[in-house]
Parts: sequence; C-alpha cells; structure tokens
Amino acid sequence: MPRLFIEQLTTPGQNIEGVFLVAEKDLRTTKKGAFFISAKLRDRTGELPAVMWDATQALFAAIPQGGYALVKGRLGEYGGGFQITIEAMRPAKENEVRLEDFLAVGPGDPQEQLARLKALLDTVQRPALRALMAAVWADEALMRDFTRAPAAEKLHHAYLGGLLEHTLGVVQNADAMLKRYPKLDRDLLLVGAFWHDLGKTRELAYAQSFGYTDAGKLVGHLVQGVIMLDEKIAAVRAAGTDFPEELACVLRHLVLAHHGTHEFGSPKLPMTAEAFTLNHIDNLDAKLHAFFRDVAADGDPVRRWTGFNKMFGGSLYKGLEEPAEEDEKDDDLKGGL
Amino acid sequence: MPRLFIEQLTTPGQNIEGVFLVAEKDLRTTKKGAFFISAKLRDRTGELPAVMWDATQALFAAIPQGGYALVKGRLGEYGGGFQITIEAMRPAKENEVRLEDFLAVGPGDPQEQLARLKALLDTVQRPALRALMAAVWADEALMRDFTRAPAAEKLHHAYLGGLLEHTLGVVQNADAMLKRYPKLDRDLLLVGAFWHDLGKTRELAYAQSFGYTDAGKLVGHLVQGVIMLDEKIAAVRAAGTDFPEELACVLRHLVLAHHGTHEFGSPKLPMTAEAFTLNHIDNLDAKLHAFFRDVAADGDPVRRWTGFNKMFGGSLYKGLEEPAEEDEKDDDLKGGL
Amino acid sequence: MPRLFIEQLTTPGQNIEGVFLVAEKDLRTTKKGAFFISAKLRDRTGELPAVMWDATQALFAAIPQGGYALVKGRLGEYGGGFQITIEAMRPAKENEVRLEDFLAVGPGDPQEQLARLKALLDTVQRPALRALMAAVWADEALMRDFTRAPAAEKLHHAYLGGLLEHTLGVVQNADAMLKRYPKLDRDLLLVGAFWHDLGKTRELAYAQSFGYTDAGKLVGHLVQGVIMLDEKIAAVRAAGTDFPEELACVLRHLVLAHHGTHEFGSPKLPMTAEAFTLNHIDNLDAKLHAFFRDVAADGDPVRRWTGFNKMFGGSLYKGLEEPAEEDEKDDDLKGGL
Amino acid sequence: MPRLFIEQLTTPGQNIEGVFLVAEKDLRTTKKGAFFISAKLRDRTGELPAVMWDATQALFAAIPQGGYALVKGRLGEYGGGFQITIEAMRPAKENEVRLEDFLAVGPGDPQEQLARLKALLDTVQRPALRALMAAVWADEALMRDFTRAPAAEKLHHAYLGGLLEHTLGVVQNADAMLKRYPKLDRDLLLVGAFWHDLGKTRELAYAQSFGYTDAGKLVGHLVQGVIMLDEKIAAVRAAGTDFPEELACVLRHLVLAHHGTHEFGSPKLPMTAEAFTLNHIDNLDAKLHAFFRDVAADGDPVRRWTGFNKMFGGSLYKGLEEPAEEDEKDDDLKGGL
Amino acid sequence: MPRLFIEQLTTPGQNIEGVFLVAEKDLRTTKKGAFFISAKLRDRTGELPAVMWDATQALFAAIPQGGYALVKGRLGEYGGGFQITIEAMRPAKENEVRLEDFLAVGPGDPQEQLARLKALLDTVQRPALRALMAAVWADEALMRDFTRAPAAEKLHHAYLGGLLEHTLGVVQNADAMLKRYPKLDRDLLLVGAFWHDLGKTRELAYAQSFGYTDAGKLVGHLVQGVIMLDEKIAAVRAAGTDFPEELACVLRHLVLAHHGTHEFGSPKLPMTAEAFTLNHIDNLDAKLHAFFRDVAADGDPVRRWTGFNKMFGGSLYKGLEEPAEEDEKDDDLKGGL
Amino acid sequence: MPRLFIEQLTTPGQNIEGVFLVAEKDLRTTKKGAFFISAKLRDRTGELPAVMWDATQALFAAIPQGGYALVKGRLGEYGGGFQITIEAMRPAKENEVRLEDFLAVGPGDPQEQLARLKALLDTVQRPALRALMAAVWADEALMRDFTRAPAAEKLHHAYLGGLLEHTLGVVQNADAMLKRYPKLDRDLLLVGAFWHDLGKTRELAYAQSFGYTDAGKLVGHLVQGVIMLDEKIAAVRAAGTDFPEELACVLRHLVLAHHGTHEFGSPKLPMTAEAFTLNHIDNLDAKLHAFFRDVAADGDPVRRWTGFNKMFGGSLYKGLEEPAEEDEKDDDLKGGL
Repeated sequence: MPRLFIEQLTTPGQNIEGVFLVAEKDLRTTKKGAFFISAKLRDRTGELPAVMWDATQALFAAIPQGGYALVKGRLGEYGGGFQITIEAMRPAKENEVRLEDFLAVGPGDPQEQLARLKALLDTVQRPALRALMAAVWADEALMRDFTRAPAAEKLHHAYLGGLLEHTLGVVQNADAMLKRYPKLDRDLLLVGAFWHDLGKTRELAYAQSFGYTDAGKLVGHLVQGVIMLDEKIAAVRAAGTDFPEELACVLRHLVLAHHGTHEFGSPKLPMTAEAFTLNHIDNLDAKLHAFFRDVAADGDPVRRWTGFNKMFGGSLYKGLEEPAEEDEKDDDLKGGL
Repeated sequence: MPRLFIEQLTTPGQNIEGVFLVAEKDLRTTKKGAFFISAKLRDRTGELPAVMWDATQALFAAIPQGGYALVKGRLGEYGGGFQITIEAMRPAKENEVRLEDFLAVGPGDPQEQLARLKALLDTVQRPALRALMAAVWADEALMRDFTRAPAAEKLHHAYLGGLLEHTLGVVQNADAMLKRYPKLDRDLLLVGAFWHDLGKTRELAYAQSFGYTDAGKLVGHLVQGVIMLDEKIAAVRAAGTDFPEELACVLRHLVLAHHGTHEFGSPKLPMTAEAFTLNHIDNLDAKLHAFFRDVAADGDPVRRWTGFNKMFGGSLYKGLEEPAEEDEKDDDLKGGL
Repeated sequence: MPRLFIEQLTTPGQNIEGVFLVAEKDLRTTKKGAFFISAKLRDRTGELPAVMWDATQALFAAIPQGGYALVKGRLGEYGGGFQITIEAMRPAKENEVRLEDFLAVGPGDPQEQLARLKALLDTVQRPALRALMAAVWADEALMRDFTRAPAAEKLHHAYLGGLLEHTLGVVQNADAMLKRYPKLDRDLLLVGAFWHDLGKTRELAYAQSFGYTDAGKLVGHLVQGVIMLDEKIAAVRAAGTDFPEELACVLRHLVLAHHGTHEFGSPKLPMTAEAFTLNHIDNLDAKLHAFFRDVAADGDPVRRWTGFNKMFGGSLYKGLEEPAEEDEKDDDLKGGL
Repeated sequence: MPRLFIEQLTTPGQNIEGVFLVAEKDLRTTKKGAFFISAKLRDRTGELPAVMWDATQALFAAIPQGGYALVKGRLGEYGGGFQITIEAMRPAKENEVRLEDFLAVGPGDPQEQLARLKALLDTVQRPALRALMAAVWADEALMRDFTRAPAAEKLHHAYLGGLLEHTLGVVQNADAMLKRYPKLDRDLLLVGAFWHDLGKTRELAYAQSFGYTDAGKLVGHLVQGVIMLDEKIAAVRAAGTDFPEELACVLRHLVLAHHGTHEFGSPKLPMTAEAFTLNHIDNLDAKLHAFFRDVAADGDPVRRWTGFNKMFGGSLYKGLEEPAEEDEKDDDLKGGL
Repeated sequence: MPRLFIEQLTTPGQNIEGVFLVAEKDLRTTKKGAFFISAKLRDRTGELPAVMWDATQALFAAIPQGGYALVKGRLGEYGGGFQITIEAMRPAKENEVRLEDFLAVGPGDPQEQLARLKALLDTVQRPALRALMAAVWADEALMRDFTRAPAAEKLHHAYLGGLLEHTLGVVQNADAMLKRYPKLDRDLLLVGAFWHDLGKTRELAYAQSFGYTDAGKLVGHLVQGVIMLDEKIAAVRAAGTDFPEELACVLRHLVLAHHGTHEFGSPKLPMTAEAFTLNHIDNLDAKLHAFFRDVAADGDPVRRWTGFNKMFGGSLYKGLEEPAEEDEKDDDLKGGL
Repeated sequence: MPRLFIEQLTTPGQNIEGVFLVAEKDLRTTKKGAFFISAKLRDRTGELPAVMWDATQALFAAIPQGGYALVKGRLGEYGGGFQITIEAMRPAKENEVRLEDFLAVGPGDPQEQLARLKALLDTVQRPALRALMAAVWADEALMRDFTRAPAAEKLHHAYLGGLLEHTLGVVQNADAMLKRYPKLDRDLLLVGAFWHDLGKTRELAYAQSFGYTDAGKLVGHLVQGVIMLDEKIAAVRAAGTDFPEELACVLRHLVLAHHGTHEFGSPKLPMTAEAFTLNHIDNLDAKLHAFFRDVAADGDPVRRWTGFNKMFGGSLYKGLEEPAEEDEKDDDLKGGL
C-alpha cells in the first residue's frame, strides 16, 4: 500500500499505516484512570491530532517526541475536525524513514548548483585559497551536509538544499558586484561568500525537522564557520601549502562580520570592503527570497498586500498589476433580490 | 597673469591678484581703534588666513561671507605660517568666477555618463514611464543641475558631477541585480534608481561651496524628490499620457523608502521588493565609494589600517598586500651610532 | 420594515433583510461536495457569523469582501451562539448603503466645528496664506473628505468626523500657546496645525471600514499632506498670488516634522519653533483623547486602573475619586452561610 | 572706586581691586624653583587669566577654587591677550560678595511672578492641597531659594530667578490646557506643575556659579522633589489636616514622571492624564525658552540658521523674514579694482 | 471537614465548602432574563470556573473581586471540564482566611534568615548607620512586612518570604565581594544591600494575590525605599543621633541606582563603587534564582533546553549531564508492528 | 651612563643618549628645501617633541614609527617647552630595548599570581578539563604571553601583567560565587573564568606600546579565545583524552557570551547559568579596577567628584570622607589686604 499523506486523509474510516513525525505527545488519564496518549502527527503535507487509547507509560516513553513513529490506525473525527485513532505505534527504524516525506525540499538540482558554484570559485587565484577550496570540495562528508542543509530554520531557503542554493545566490551576487567594483578583491569576496553560512551545516539540525543543534545555540554559525575554516586551513598547512596568517584573519573577518551589526550577532563590524559588500549581497539574497516566497504564499487574489510580515515590519506590496480586461460582472445572482 | 592657486603661494612677497572664496570674515579693531578685516581665503587647493588693514565697515559689509571676492595683495608671514595681506578687495562679478577653481570636480565625463544612463533607462517598457523619462531628459535646467550637482556635502561623491556618477552607479547595480532576480520589476527598479537622489539637485547648494539649501534642511531630498516626481507626472498627464495613480504611489515609495529605516530619515520602510533592493544597492554604491576614497586618502604606506572612520565605526582595513621583495635595509645611517 | 441592527438580533428565528458589511468570506465544501459560504457580517453594532448553503462559485466571487451585501435570511444558532442563515444575498448598490449604519460617528457637529476652525484660521495675516486657506475652503471635495474622515484607524478619534475634531483641537491648542508664547509666528502655527494631518483624507479609507489606502501604506499622510499643499500652492500661484518659496518650505517642514522624531516617521526633525510646538500640541490632543476614551471604556467600577494599555506602556490610572458616602453593606445575602 | 568688570578691562596698566570668582587655580614653579599661581578670574561679564608671582603654598591653599577672592593687581598682556597680574589676594568675606556681579540674572521681577503664581495656585479646591500650598508659601527659606534658583545649569532659564520663571510658565501652560481639556483634574495639574522642578532648589548650586550639588548628582531633582513633598505633607498632617495617602502618591507620580521616559531619568512613565500633560507642557516651556534664546544668541544677521544645536539635534531656523526694502548696494569700495 | 483544595476536586458531585479567592466575577443574564454569576475561584493549587444561578445584583456587588469568599457548592462539569456550582456564597471574614492556602510560600525559615541578616549587618561600624539599623530591627510592623513580602510579583522569589530571602542573598553577595575588594566601603554596601528592595514592602500587594499597590504603580519601590529611608533617618535624628546629610544622600543613591540603567527605571546611574557593585550582585542573585527555578520547572527529562525564556531572551541550557548508564530500551511494545 | 628618563630631562643642554619609542615621525622640508625630521619620543615617564636637522629620506624610512630608536642628542627649548635636538639616530636592536622602560607594569608579582590561579584551577574535577588545563600550564609560550599581556589597551588593567591580574580576579570572584550558589557548575565556571580573555594574548600588541593586532581588529579576543580553546582541545584529544563535544561547546559559549549582550560584541547571549555569572563577575572586576584607578588619578584633594568619566557616563563619587579635624585657617596671607 503506498503511503497516504496527511493531505490525502479526507474520509473518516480510512485505514492508515505509515511513518509519521511525532510533533507533540502527551500522556493523559481518562476519568476512569486509564492512560491514553494525545499526540500530533506530521508529515510534509500537514499535521493531524491523534489519540491512542489504552496506552502504557512504557509505550509513551518509547515514542520519541520530535522523532519518527510507525503508526497503524484509522481516520476519525473529533471536535469538528479529523483525528487519527492510533491502534498501534512503535518508534520507526532508520531505514523506514524517507526524509523527503517529512521535510521540504528545495526546487533546484543540487549537483547542477554545485557545479556552477565550483566554476565560480575556480576563478580564485591565490594558491593558498585554491588549496583551501580544493580541500573543501574533497571533503565528502562536508559536501553531503552542504548540499542537504537548509539555509535557515524558517527565515529563508528553509528546505533541504537551501544552504547550497543561497550560497550560490550570494556567490553570484559577488560575481556581479566584482564586475561593478573592480577594486574589490575577487579572491576574498568569492571565498568569503562561499564560506559565510557554512557553519550552518553544524548549526542547523535537519534530520527530522529543522531546528538548532546544541552547537547552533551555544556557538552559532558565524563562529562555527570560523572553526571549520581553521580546521581546513590547518589541513592545508599540514599538506605543505603556505597559508599566510593575515589571509586567515581576513577570511575569518568575512565570516564573522557578515551579519553587519552587533545587533544581528556579528562580533565584529565589517571593516574591509569585501566584508561590507558581503553583508549587503547576503542580506539581499536572503530577504528577496523571503519576500517573493511570502508574496506567493498569500492566496488572496484580490488584495494587493500580504498580511503583516514580521521580517519586513509591515505588509508587503505584491507588485503592480497591469490593467487587464474587466471581467463581466454577473448580476444575475441566486436569490434574486 | 595666470591665476596663482593657494598651493602655489610659497614665497613671501609674491603678488596675488585673483578671485577667492571668502570662507570667513571678521571685522576687528586695532588697539588704536582702527578697523581691520581678518579673513580666510579659499580656493580648490587650500585656504590661507588674510588680513586687510584700514578697512571700513562698508567694505566689510559688502564682502560676501561664503561668497567670492576679487582680491589684490601680497603673500606675507604671520605666527609661523603664511598670510595674505590684502591691499584691495571687492565682491567678484559672476562672470569673473570659474566654479572649477573652487569646487572639487569628479573624475568622469558627464556627457559620457549621461549617455550610459539614458541607454539603461531606455530599456524601460511601460509607456507612462517612458513618457516620464522623456520629460526628464527634455528638461534642460534639470539636466544642467543633475550633471553638475554633488551627491553629498561630504559623505560620498562630494564633488561636481558626483550625483550623476552615483546615480549611474546605482542604476548599473540595479541592472546587475535585475539579471540575478528576474521577479524584480525592471521598470520600477530602474526608474526608482534614477530618481532616488534627484531631490539633491535642490537639497544641496553647490554654487560656491557644498552645503544644504533651505529646502534641504526643511524638506530634505527624499520629499523634494517626490515633489519633483509629482511635477513631472503632472506634466506627463497634461501632455495626454495616462499615468496611473498607483504607479505614481509606487514610485514615490521607492524614493521615500530608499534610506531603508526611519532612523536614517525614511518616512516609510521598504515594502516592495524593488524598494528593498534599491536601499541595498544605493548603500553599497555610496559606501564603497567612501571606503575606497578614505583608504586612498590615508597617506601612510606602512600601516594597513586607516584611522578611526566615523561612517564605518572603526578603522578601515586597506586590503591584503601580496608579499613583495623586501627592500634592502639601509644600515648605513647618518650619525653612525 | 426598519433595519434590524446586529445588537437587536436576539431571538432565533427572526427574519433578517438588510445591508451588511461582509467582513470575511470563505468558500467551503460540505462532505458531500456541495459549496457553502461561511462569512462574517458586520454593522456598526457588532458582528455575527453567517452561513449560506447551496452557494455557487459565481455568487461567492460576486460578494465583495470588505464590501456591502444585501442579505436576506433568518437568525439561527450554532456552536453556542447566534448565526445568520443566509437565504439570498447580492452586492449592495451604492444608494442602498447608509454609511452611518456601519461606521462609528464622532460626537460633534461637523458644521459647527468647521465654523470654529475657519474663525481661528481667519486670523492669519499674510496674504499668501489667506489665499491658500481660501482655496482650501473653496474645495468642496476636500471639505467633504475633511469633515468625514477619521483621524486614525484605531489610535485616536477613530470615527467619522474625527479628523475635523482633532484638527480643531490642535488649532485651539495652537491658539492657546500663541497667547503664551508671543514669539511664535501665529500664521505659521495656525496653518501648520490645520494642515498637519490633512494627508489622512487620502491615507485612510473610510468608505466601508477604517483602513489604509495604497497611498497611505506607500506614501503616508505626512508626504501626502505635502503633496496636497503643493497642489494648492500651485493653484494659488496660478491664480496670481505670490507665494514665496521659502514660505512653502517652512509649511512643508511643519507637516513633515510634526511626528517629532525619525522613529515616529518624520523624515525631518522639528527645526522651527512652530514645528516643535506643533509636535507637542498634536501629541497632547491625540493622546489625551485616547486616554480619556480608554479610561471610559474600562467598565469596572471598582478598579482604579485600566488593563495594560499599549499606547501608554502601562495601566492607566482612572483618577482620584473623592471620598463618597460609604454604601450600606448588605450582609443579608442569599445562601445564609 | 566702583568695581571694574572684566569687560571693562581693556587698557594695559589699569589698576584692579575687587572680588573675583576663582574659576581655576594652579600652583606652579618657575625654572628657578619659586612658586607662582596661575589662575582664571571670572565675573558676570567674562574671564581673564591671571598670574601671581612669589606665591606661597599657604596662600594657594587658602584661595578657594570655585570661590571668591578679593584681588588687587594690574592689567597686563601675555601671549597675545590680556592677563591680570595679581599683587595681593585673599579669600573674600561673605559680605564682600555681591552675587549679581557673578551670576546671570533673569529678566523678570520675582515678586511679581510669585504673585501671579500664587493667584493661579489659589484656584486649587481640595482642602488638603490648599493646606499644602499654604505651608509652601509660609516657608520663608524655601521661598527664598525658590525665587533665586536657576531652572537649570545650562539648558534653559539658566539664571537667577529662572526656576520661578519656568515654574510660572508651566503653571500658566497648565491653566491654558485645563481650559482646553476639562476632564483634567485642575487641582492635580496645578500643584504638579508647581512642584515638578522644586527639587532643583536642592539639586542646583547657585551660590557662586551654577552647578550640581551632591544631592543633585546622587539623588536628582525628581526624587529630591518627592522628599520635599513628603516633608511638607508630614507637616500638613502634623498640623491636623487630613492628607489622603492616595493623593500623596498621585502627586509623587506627577513629580517623578514629568520627564516622560525612563531615558530622560523618570523612574515611572506618566500613567495619569495630568502626568502626561505635565510632561508635555514642561518640555514645551523649557525648549521654547532655549530655542528663542539660542536664536537670539546667534549674532549673524545674514544667515537664517544657527549653528548646530545639540539640544535640538540640528541647526535652528530663525524664522521667516518679511521681504524688506533692499539696501542699496555700495559698489564704490575702497581699493578701486 | 478539612478543606478540599482545587487539585483535590476530581469527582463530579463532590461537596465543596471553604474559602476561595474570587479571581474573576461577572454578572450575566440568562435568556429568560434571570441574573447569574460566572466566576473563577482560586486557591494555591489551581483555579476552576464557577457559576451561581439565581444570583442578585446585591450579592454580586458584595463579593469582592480579587478578594476572598466563603463558598458552598458542588462539583459539576461543563464544556469538557470541571465547574463549581455555587449554592451559597458570602465575603469571607478576615479570620476565616489562611493566607498560606492561597499564596506560594518560600522554602526558607524566615526567623533563621533574619538572624543571619542581622549578624551581617551588625558588622557595620558608623554610629549613624548602627542607629539606623537598630531603628529598623525595632520596627515590628516593618519587620512583619519584610519577612512576609515576596521579592517580585513574578520575576524572582515570587513567594511569601521571598523579599527576605533575596535581601539576605544580596547581603551575602556583598559580604563576599567586600572580601574581594577591600576598597569598597563595607558600611555603605551592606546597608545599601539591605535597603535596596525594602520599598517592595509597599510596592507589592500580597494580602490575597501578588500584585502592585497604587504606590507601587505610581511611585515604585526605588523611590518608596528612599521615602522609608528618610522616615527612619528622621527618627534617628529625632532620637538625637547625628546623621550626616551626605551619608543620607549616598544611601539614597544606592537605592535609586540599583537597577543600573535608566532603561530599567533607575533615575540615577551608579556613580559610587558601592552602587555599581550593588547593581551587579542584586542582578546576579535575582537572575540566578530565576534561572534555576525555570530550569527546574521544565519537566521534560530529555531536552537539554527549556522553551523560550523571556527574561533571558532565549532557551536556557539546563547544564551538562555526566554520561550515565544507558537505560535498556524496551522494544517489546504494545501493538506489535 | 644610566639612562635618563624623559621626566628627568629638565635642564636645557642636558646630553641624551638612549633608546626611545618613536611615537610619531614626520619628514618635513625647511624653507630652503632641506629635509628635517619632526618626531615625538616617548618612554614610560612621558613624551617630548624632537627635531633632527639635515635628515635624509633613507634615515626617515629606516626609523620605525611606533618602534624603538637609539637616539643621541641634547635637550633644547622650543615654543615655550622642551624639545630634544637629535644629533644621531638609528633603529634600536632588540637586545637594546628594555620593555619595562616603555610600558606600564602592573603592581603584582606574576609568579605569585600564577601560583594562586593554578591552585584554584586545580580544584576542577572532570578529567577532560584537568587535561585541558595541564596542556595550558605546559605551554611555555602561552604562559609567557599570558603573564606579560595587559588586560586592555586602556580601559582597565592596562599594564604588563594586567591580563593575569584580571584573570585571577575573575577566577577569585567565581570561587566566591560558587560558595554562594552551589548549583553552579564549578568546573565550567572556573575554566570559563580562566579562559574568558585568553584571546587577548593575540588581540593586543604590547611589544612596544599597547594596541590592537590585526587579529584583534579583524577577529577579536572572543573568537580568538575560541580558536585557542579548539587548538588545545585538539591537542588533548590527540594525546588520547576523551573530550566530549558538548563540553567543548559549553566552554566556547562561556567565552563567546562573556560580554553579555550583542551590543558589547558577544555573538551569543549567555544561556547557561555559568555564562550569565561570568558576564557579571568579569564586568565587576574590570569596572571596579577602573573606578578605583580613575578616582585615584584625580589629583584634586578638595572635590568629592572626578571629572566626567566616559566609561561610567558621569562623574565618579570618590567616597564618603570621615569628618576630620578642621585645619587651622591661615588668615595671615601675603598681600595684607
């Protein structure tokens, strides 16, 4: 039986068997003192409340909150909506979970994006930086993370592959600005644009749902990126390539200063032309992505404005619409008043 | 006799005859009760103190502070430096003043820059906007101001022709970003980029030195730009071209929101994708100009950092220097210790 | 049959026929696949949910969200409250809608308030400003808007006629302060006080419910007020009256600076004594109105404080109550414990 | 010999004998090892450097810095300006010092201002408040301080009598606003306006020059005002008048909240209508006083703007000037170029 | 019958008789026009909705909102939960109310804490301060309040006895820092630490539930603490002990500046070493208390982080856990998938 | 000849031979076109202007600005003060420079302080952290830096040995607070306190004068400290000791969050109890050091307040002075007025 997604659960009585993410779970007691589990089950397409009667404390403890469970049950109704009645449930095994059933996936082709990214970075000239990038491309574990990670939990590019897509976007912006401002140091801006969010591979968890790792909360992706940079520089040096300390400092600065202000978590303000540029072209790529996403998400075809948007501090204007042929108004309405 | 500039006044006794900007003037009294004028005379190359003995109150009143005077005198010395002893002085006539002797002039060729700007704006499609731009190009007085005005009193592009140069820079940035983000509305972003600082033609005074006009201080270039936009839209409409009110509002918004935050004087936050983009690409062009200018202005060939820079909130890093051949150290120094 | 207002709908089964504002509308599908409309209907006295079975997509599309519909139906009950069952519905025609059935109306008499306002403005002396005000009073469309518009969507004087009432209040405050500080320029402060919120006639929509227009969101009432000022000045000049440009700038400044700080959306800080004064007397009139309204709205006769008030950042103190005769306490309560 | 003020010391050799404020003093050693005193002497009209040769450490210690000294000497010259050569000097006795020779004095008549203030406060109705004010007027020491103190060290009304003048101004503003907003509690607003800066009698030192007392720096005039209020309330209660505790709290609030925001040092935000009003009318009186003072202090008859003004954050606009007859330009200037 | 607490009300039909806090009350009308009271009853263990049919307006008025009522009734059910049906109700008499049934009580022994506090304060040396503290300890009403009051409504030590516990904590911190920094003035820091929150005895209401008094909202505990200090100093002086005014000012400063910044409500910034220290050690004690409380309150044994914590601006990290023996995982789950 | 320090140069004509720090240097041209060097020479005791006639461009280039030069010359006078006339000058060799002649040295004994620090850190329990600290103590180069570095360029402990002194102070504060709050994790707080400023060994330059290194300006001591931590953790792991990644993250957090807010450059806010505590006890040690230093530096024995202090935002109160015997006033002053 092919998996039914939550958006396909529309007929009370449907049989359900499949893996769901247990978004919430709660052990409760009936008035007669029996335990039951109240939960929320989620997949990529939505979320439904669920209830399992005759539960035990042991079962409850075994089900991982924020983790996956194999669920068998039936669709019921409660309180004016649907609810899954769970008949049996156990933690899912790793090979039973298909990540793409649960997490949003970006629109692009990661391998094609990676190839474009490499082509741009391949224009870097300094031997030390070429060695650094070669070490990056050769690190398979890092490449696997880099091509899968989202760029953010929610703010922008919040889907599998989002980090790669956003990084490519910023590197392309860098390339465009380098053509405009030839005094910018091409090597530094390109490598800085590549590295600016690399720490997110360790800041963000995306095995089950998008969230922050301990390292993300305690250290953050800026400093995490510097730590990864230092690891790779150490490897490059260990392999015999000279990597000047000043160059290392300037790269660290690019990563640390890319949020632009202390207020947004940068421990250093941009004090190189490339760091200043990186702050702007990163912000532009992230915010335009979010702008167009939020405008597209607003379903109302009549209103020219979205609702209040927290990131931008107001309603977003959806854009000028060209005058179209006026639809014929249908005056002949039911009810004939 | 060709004009001697202040930087050429190096030999006491030199005769001086020419137009100077009277940067300061002060009527004072000698111990014996006679009036004398103490002044500062300025041209493009510098400034010198000056004194005129046996002055009258009428002469003092006639000399325009912050204006031009024809001065005849001789170079003297006072208090360890040079000083001009004025023998005769009167207000300069308009045709005696060559503006380029007094104000910094930008490096570019205005006509060539204007041609490139027009070419980019010529890709605009909507008939209303084409008519608007045609009205702009046809307005000779505006074009004269637009090609002469500085972009700022001090912050960036602070020289004759600076507004045109900066505007072209922002429009070119817009063109580059339009290639990157095809969902942006090309018409709006290009016209908005053109218009964003147009109010500076009325905000800034640049007939004698750079400063703010009354309109600049009371109204500011954002609202001044909207006023100028409305004047041109009225003209376009009067000429029979339909100019939708919503389009006018969206353009006004681009001008008003281009400083990005209330704190920087925008009465509206950017709420269209084009306004958000304009804020970033304008800031990038202005700040990179200032960055490279301030780095270039720092004469010290040894230090890698400028002094404290108010605009960026710290010392600017001048950039990575490639390792060069070490100069032979000269140990054979005078004094032979 | 006289119109029944929503607050009069208290008996299930009541017949309903009248115009309502469609505050929300939603097209849904029954389990059997039939369309039905779920809506919220509103008039000045309240709002009720409504449902229309057997709806069509065409009917749904024809009903204007945020607009008026002529509704025929019956009062029913659902989920513990009342609900209107719509039997027939069509968009209302303009002449069927009585605005005062839907929008709050201020307590004052607009014509009387307008007369007092004119009397105060008539003390203005400069011919240019007298011509300006004459042009204002003569503009019937503007006067219609000015006497009907609210002063804000929610913050203060949020009812039909509120703009006029608030404007009169600020002009009266100006008059009081002019007596206190004779160095203030009477002409400027009075005209500035009159004009400070005039842009709200175009910023706020109040045909159906109070909200912001596109111009309101994109341009705002400060700059909108300047645009309207420039239109009128152009008319005055066209009619042959000299209107000095500096005077125009000073008036624009009064309008632009009246919010007092960048943070509150003024693109310019008050730099004239009149602009500084206007900022304070405007704020005083608006906030005291809101203070007394919110205190009056707090129904609890015992507590001396309202709940948390966002505008003032705390609970409002209702005022000192004079000691009154203590009510006899009734100890003889039901239940007789 | 009548006292010569510093502005009258214009001829080297003039004999000097009189009391001066010793603004600075420094004990130095000549190259030969003798002590000499370098000092700055000040009176109401200015300040001059002074030197006393052959000084002793004992004399130096005896002269009060920031205090008054009786000085005998002669006017000399040094470093391009005047300097007083002190021949003899000792601390001045209290009866030798005329305060008005050293401190700026306000323009008004204190007794007349006090009478107007009392007349306004006499409209207060509640017996407790009438008793409070009676206790104030009866406190001769307080009244002496209140009529002499400045309202600020520098910001506004910074002269003897300034506190009274400013207090009267705020009370008059209160009276004007009470006519405008009858819901305001007259008693509270008048007494609050009277009391708002009363703590400045203890915050500011004005025996010799204007400065802050220890209490001013450690406690501040807001809390000092509350302390004085509590002293007087205690006295009123001790005299048998009932003074409700809630009334006391509301008055304390008026004093504590009158700066309007935490940022400006108020420990409480205004949460009564009277406190909100008091904040605005106080600010208006103080700032308008400073505005007109700073505009008047700008001597340049040509410029329409003052220099940068820290309090207002920009240059102040001096006001619109009516077109006047153009002065005949004198072209016949000396020098005859 | 021993009192049943709300957490013990679990069986519909249970008889209820006891004192409850009336958290909310509302007089409503049935469809037939009869009055009924809808209320929320609360004790230390929780809150339940309640309804009383056949109520009268007089009864409703007599029941104190936020006060205590003696209630007789029965446990019923409504809307999926429990509800108390009130059969009879009257205001409780003071001797019927046991405060500890309604308010949280701190973990410590007040008398033991007070003894430790006195021992530390007894090391103070200056006679004036010893007299001040003696007057404090001798004030029985103050001691009763001081040992019962909470330290805050919600933020930290929000239980009966919390003020004493927190004060002792800050005084102990002071003692520890005095050992570290011998230049600190022991007398001042200890007395300042004792007095810093003393005003909370009048700021906070804790007779029924924790909240702010009128004095708390209008004046605040900083200024209230100064008022109490001045009362006691007056008493000390009246008793013949010399209390220098400068010492009084320095103590007032300690109380007023202990919040550290204007933003947090201090009218003065700390300008003595002791005031600066007090700000830090107070903050440390309050925040660490809140940190450990909030970590302890997070029931989830798996997550290492609490939810978002407003006081700290993020999730709190619960601390490093030492590696423990892994629990045996129970794979034998119900449902046997 | 023993070295003459600048404070010993008091007699024109004194011969000078010794090493000086060249604080500034400038190559200038006499009116006749000859080069001369204008410089400022500095040692620990002060700074004097210097001039060297007949200089060459080669010599000028060879002299290191901000570096040391061996100078031979004579004390002269110029413009009312002393000036060194340089007869010969060359860069100093490393073994000719005694650092303590040029830089302020802290009051403590580094070895004794280090021993106390080690003793406190030796109470750490977790094996991983004991191994980490052992690696620190064994790193001779690091220990040399750590015991010599200042704690800041100017703000506090700005002398050789200052970093060690401040670190010991913070660790002692940690020890004191651990006794007060046993729920704090002793291991984490002690190691965090030790490590919090360790990055300053690389952030600050102190070979010649105190300043920031490139790494200091580009990366900062917070992230530099994390980099050093990661280096040492890598070494510990390489040596076979297990070092859990979560422990590493928590330590990194302690270092990164110790400035407490984004505003002060922390990329992460404190989210562990130890990080929150560290922020406060670090701030306390640094600011109290600065407070007592600045109070001690104020020479005026009369005033109770220092001048405006930027760090604290006001004048500092020097502390309460006990009443002393009044000095006999000497009325018998010179001049006998």
